[in-house]
Amino acid sequence: MDEERSALTRLARQLHLQEYWVAQPDFQSTAPRSAAVPHLWRWADVAPVLRKTGEIIGVGAHVAEAERRALILSNPGLGGRPDITTTLYADLQLVRPGEVAPAHRHTTTANRFIMEGEGGFTVVAGEKVTMSRGDFVNNPAWLWHDFGNEGGEDAIWLDVLDVPLVTTLNGVFYDYDFWKEGDLDKTAQSVRQPPDHSHALYGIGGVAPRFVGPADRLYSRQLVYRWASVRAALDRLRGWPGSPYDALILEYTNPETGGSVAPTMGFAIQLLRPGEQTRAHRHTASTVYCVVEGQGYTQVDRQRLEWSGNDVFVVPGWAWHHHVNLRRSADAVLFSASDAPALEKLGLYREEARTETGDIVSVTG
Amino acid sequence: MDEERSALTRLARQLHLQEYWVAQPDFQSTAPRSAAVPHLWRWADVAPVLRKTGEIIGVGAHVAEAERRALILSNPGLGGRPDITTTLYADLQLVRPGEVAPAHRHTTTANRFIMEGEGGFTVVAGEKVTMSRGDFVNNPAWLWHDFGNEGGEDAIWLDVLDVPLVTTLNGVFYDYDFWKEGDLDKTAQSVRQPPDHSHALYGIGGVAPRFVGPADRLYSRQLVYRWASVRAALDRLRGWPGSPYDALILEYTNPETGGSVAPTMGFAIQLLRPGEQTRAHRHTASTVYCVVEGQGYTQVDRQRLEWSGNDVFVVPGWAWHHHVNLRRSADAVLFSASDAPALEKLGLYREEARTETGDIVSVTG
Amino acid sequence: MDEERSALTRLARQLHLQEYWVAQPDFQSTAPRSAAVPHLWRWADVAPVLRKTGEIIGVGAHVAEAERRALILSNPGLGGRPDITTTLYADLQLVRPGEVAPAHRHTTTANRFIMEGEGGFTVVAGEKVTMSRGDFVNNPAWLWHDFGNEGGEDAIWLDVLDVPLVTTLNGVFYDYDFWKEGDLDKTAQSVRQPPDHSHALYGIGGVAPRFVGPADRLYSRQLVYRWASVRAALDRLRGWPGSPYDALILEYTNPETGGSVAPTMGFAIQLLRPGEQTRAHRHTASTVYCVVEGQGYTQVDRQRLEWSGNDVFVVPGWAWHHHVNLRRSADAVLFSASDAPALEKLGLYREEARTETGDIVSVTG
Amino acid sequence: MDEERSALTRLARQLHLQEYWVAQPDFQSTAPRSAAVPHLWRWADVAPVLRKTGEIIGVGAHVAEAERRALILSNPGLGGRPDITTTLYADLQLVRPGEVAPAHRHTTTANRFIMEGEGGFTVVAGEKVTMSRGDFVNNPAWLWHDFGNEGGEDAIWLDVLDVPLVTTLNGVFYDYDFWKEGDLDKTAQSVRQPPDHSHALYGIGGVAPRFVGPADRLYSRQLVYRWASVRAALDRLRGWPGSPYDALILEYTNPETGGSVAPTMGFAIQLLRPGEQTRAHRHTASTVYCVVEGQGYTQVDRQRLEWSGNDVFVVPGWAWHHHVNLRRSADAVLFSASDAPALEKLGLYREEARTETGDIVSVTG
Repeated sequence: MDEERSALTRLARQLHLQEYWVAQPDFQSTAPRSAAVPHLWRWADVAPVLRKTGEIIGVGAHVAEAERRALILSNPGLGGRPDITTTLYADLQLVRPGEVAPAHRHTTTANRFIMEGEGGFTVVAGEKVTMSRGDFVNNPAWLWHDFGNEGGEDAIWLDVLDVPLVTTLNGVFYDYDFWKEGDLDKTAQSVRQPPDHSHALYGIGGVAPRFVGPADRLYSRQLVYRWASVRAALDRLRGWPGSPYDALILEYTNPETGGSVAPTMGFAIQLLRPGEQTRAHRHTASTVYCVVEGQGYTQVDRQRLEWSGNDVFVVPGWAWHHHVNLRRSADAVLFSASDAPALEKLGLYREEARTETGDIVSVTG
Repeated sequence: MDEERSALTRLARQLHLQEYWVAQPDFQSTAPRSAAVPHLWRWADVAPVLRKTGEIIGVGAHVAEAERRALILSNPGLGGRPDITTTLYADLQLVRPGEVAPAHRHTTTANRFIMEGEGGFTVVAGEKVTMSRGDFVNNPAWLWHDFGNEGGEDAIWLDVLDVPLVTTLNGVFYDYDFWKEGDLDKTAQSVRQPPDHSHALYGIGGVAPRFVGPADRLYSRQLVYRWASVRAALDRLRGWPGSPYDALILEYTNPETGGSVAPTMGFAIQLLRPGEQTRAHRHTASTVYCVVEGQGYTQVDRQRLEWSGNDVFVVPGWAWHHHVNLRRSADAVLFSASDAPALEKLGLYREEARTETGDIVSVTG
Repeated sequence: MDEERSALTRLARQLHLQEYWVAQPDFQSTAPRSAAVPHLWRWADVAPVLRKTGEIIGVGAHVAEAERRALILSNPGLGGRPDITTTLYADLQLVRPGEVAPAHRHTTTANRFIMEGEGGFTVVAGEKVTMSRGDFVNNPAWLWHDFGNEGGEDAIWLDVLDVPLVTTLNGVFYDYDFWKEGDLDKTAQSVRQPPDHSHALYGIGGVAPRFVGPADRLYSRQLVYRWASVRAALDRLRGWPGSPYDALILEYTNPETGGSVAPTMGFAIQLLRPGEQTRAHRHTASTVYCVVEGQGYTQVDRQRLEWSGNDVFVVPGWAWHHHVNLRRSADAVLFSASDAPALEKLGLYREEARTETGDIVSVTG
Repeated sequence: MDEERSALTRLARQLHLQEYWVAQPDFQSTAPRSAAVPHLWRWADVAPVLRKTGEIIGVGAHVAEAERRALILSNPGLGGRPDITTTLYADLQLVRPGEVAPAHRHTTTANRFIMEGEGGFTVVAGEKVTMSRGDFVNNPAWLWHDFGNEGGEDAIWLDVLDVPLVTTLNGVFYDYDFWKEGDLDKTAQSVRQPPDHSHALYGIGGVAPRFVGPADRLYSRQLVYRWASVRAALDRLRGWPGSPYDALILEYTNPETGGSVAPTMGFAIQLLRPGEQTRAHRHTASTVYCVVEGQGYTQVDRQRLEWSGNDVFVVPGWAWHHHVNLRRSADAVLFSASDAPALEKLGLYREEARTETGDIVSVTG
């Protein structure tokens, strides 16, 4: 019997077949067990390394040593993969005064949350977008973009992309011919739009221009969401109860549809009032957080991630989590990126929450 | 032969039949011939009548003479029907200081553009909305609402409703039991939301609260669109080319979908720069305009409608029209209401335009 | 006082203004009161008149007396308008052997249910569709179409169009230039598709061709729904409970979307089993019925419409109605046309039903 | 310098950071390079192994050795992963006469194409579906299902699931409590629907029941698509040109939406006429094929996959491919499964084709 089975196994393997009862495929897990683990990158640890790269790594068209000077946040559970979850990629990028990164484009979607510096800018499809602390910058898939820093201090931001998801789906195209066309002095796009073009056009609130073409239902045409107006909106909603799990949470939206900024990823900003503690929930979506203000912790399953300004942390899918603002007299504000839009489109978003009495209830029904 | 035909006709009529070749039904017209005609109600003419009604007509729950003190704009082409087009109803309403109109609700959608007065207010579904000149107020179908004036001067606004369309579709329900419940001192709703609730929640621009329920895809939940922010948005877009037919035109939107405020009607505000003249176009949608600022005219087929502040005018479906700002140093601003969303949903929206060389081209393809 | 009011009224009327409190506009009705009334056109009465028109009225390109030989069903409540409800138009059309009606097109949507004859045909956008008793023929808006009869007996069918609705919306375009191009022998389209083209391509069930262009989301591309397969489907579902209000009711669908055949109108076929009686409901949609098989009655509010084969009857919006098959051993089958899709798109569809205990409940919530 | 860099690298790795310029992440590939490779599993090789498993592996609730007797098709390029592409899982399953597999459910979607045997059945959500050669069986996510074989010969089918994609998205839930509830004689669901329930209800073609609830927009409610009607449909379309790349290809659809059977996967059947050869194209979607009839080959990049009945083969994303029917007098028929619906929802579907002159053109624009 055993011999017969061994023979079967050998023959099967030769034919690129695997016995179901031996392989025990993934889909028999009773609930998602993400390979990604909860983790926090402390700014106090990361910042010196990042600043060091600024000193020793050259970047830009003329130097060409590195296309980007970035440190990739590699989830400790993913065996050395350069990914922060099974679907998301994140890095911390530093651009020094005077640097210019060459133009390129890709089918992955890139979004940036600005952590430091006033002089950074990006040119996306001919629109120059200045970037300051707290701004959220949106780079829809396949639009040409380049970066630079016209200020006097380093510009630092968090990049979040959907690289692992798009890779799994065999959808990654990358185009840097703009740069390769021989004339290295012309690696950057010419600016063809007035400053703050898309913000003036789309970020109005309540009204929308009728003199632009049909809506882009996949990607937001608003390329920057300014910190001042987002922070003011959080303040105005201070009196609302908010979400039991996420306090006062606002989603950055595609103004033409009211939906998420990209088809694969959604982005949000949330405010925890002084001393506020949320109730625990879990969902199949994975989330990457960046701490904008304040001090507190996020409890993820049995792990407590203590955070303060500029820390980045990750909550894998289906992990219980809740947030606590530890300060009695100051707000805490968290920026976050999530793969929820992809999950929802494919019928895979599920959410459970704990009630006040500790029971688990389904939120998605 | 003629006798046979006469006999046939008599018999047919008895049986509620009509001969096709005699009746010549409407649908043989080669292009829409709206019964409605272009017309302008000059504020200089209308205002005295409206103010007079304020003196001699009582209103409100205790007086009960009139539920509303309003003058209906009756299109001269519609044979005395109380409608401004075949699909839209419009009136000018005056509420005196201290008056309160009883709560009611209806399946027609009501939207208001505030023309005068600072003390007017409406309570819609428990949210109190103050109304000042230039504000656009949205009353989704079937929500309880009541009005009042807490200021020291008359409040005057333009109401636009989809009454003729909803009547044709046999969809009109009207509910005033809130008022009839015997206790006439309680004709108004209690206010259950913080002031400017929906404006703070939905009118933000770029971000949307994640802690409210699923989107209302039919009706905007934003109940007021404030003049100050809309006027500022128009100013910021001054450098854009805008629409060749409508200059700098912004649509009031449902922030949860990016679409029109109501399923049957859309609303817009447009700015004509000093001396600006638009190109002519025509569309199956009918439009009602209210002049917010400036002086100019709108050419409608062969008719020239000269307008200035607070005038109301109507452009019927499929009439050629273009706008001219006659002032060399001041903007002209027009508010408008249209049935385009209904036409689009039913596959009936068509648009043609004149090119710079005078040719007629289809815009809708 | 009275004099003041009279003066006000006179002045207002001169200015095309109406006092709200005098005009009492339609939208104050607590529930829809359609001007259309329930009515039944008995085939026994109508058929002789229709056949008579066949004798005395010429039709076709060469005769040009009448473009169509049709008797319009004029609702007795609509004051002589050639409409069967406030939104729908219906006529009974007769085409004699050898006749050909010239090609034309219009933005109203036309659908036909074939009542008699085997030789009728229509050519729609180059596809020739033969028409036999029980077939449902779909003519999307703005497609060229012409008719004819190649058989040996009269062809008779019911036409249903959305004329009053499209007229209210100022959307009626009619194009007969195909016919007017001088050469009267070429009034019919050349056939460019294989016979039963769209039925073979779209009417398959469960599968759809991937080699046609993107879906038409407004209009079904399936031009004919054959009686044999529809009748067989009704039979196969005999064991299902069906709808409490409409028994075994099937909707003709747009195979590319699963939705209604046209954006403004929906069409259905329903089978009442021997002796079956449905429960009463009412909805804002208006419905035109044609009796395909059997004998029974439909109770509409207080009126009992007794019907048998080929009778046509109408149930106005918001009228209570239920159906009864009076035969103990034969099915009753009703074809119907409705404006429900338009109402649903505009947020105006409402339905109430009587429960088994006689209570009224909302079906639409 | 090098030392500084080494120190930087060490420090970065300790902190779970990776240098971008060292890691060279996936998204810099100019075009998708799927890890999956083209491969064909020849039925002549696979069948003996599969039949052998029938002899030596027990299955079912009482035996409990293996939940399924299946051989997983493991793509040679995926390093031993039990997946056929980076998004899809496929296995060949054999159920012997009299066997019953216990009920379970999962959030992955499972679809089956029946290759052999007449007695197989599945019970999905209380509906018993008999399975014969050529039938396509649909098991929407999270519905309870069990299998069995009531016939006298082995039942063999191809299972295709979206396991790798759903695993990447952390969306896998699996529930076998139905089976674990202690009473092993009750591992199968009771049948609560008439035979062929959903096929009779949804698979009609042109009409749809109005007496079922609102449409399921994610998953088709039609659980089986019968071979006889699908094969007949292919035959009826023989005269059409079909797709230049896929000949006469029909997609199995969700009858309530006209869209794909599942949100993540689509399924099709295609007929190559005698001697027919298609033109080459490539798309980001990955495709698994099963040969239903005939003999031919599929050219995939530089590899020629020669196929005949019951062979299974895979074409990875972005690989050029075209099909050839080598028989001069017999059809070839291919069943296929694809991840295109997931790619389209996420904005990642792209397609290029070779024109007749050999040029490459974008099909998706």
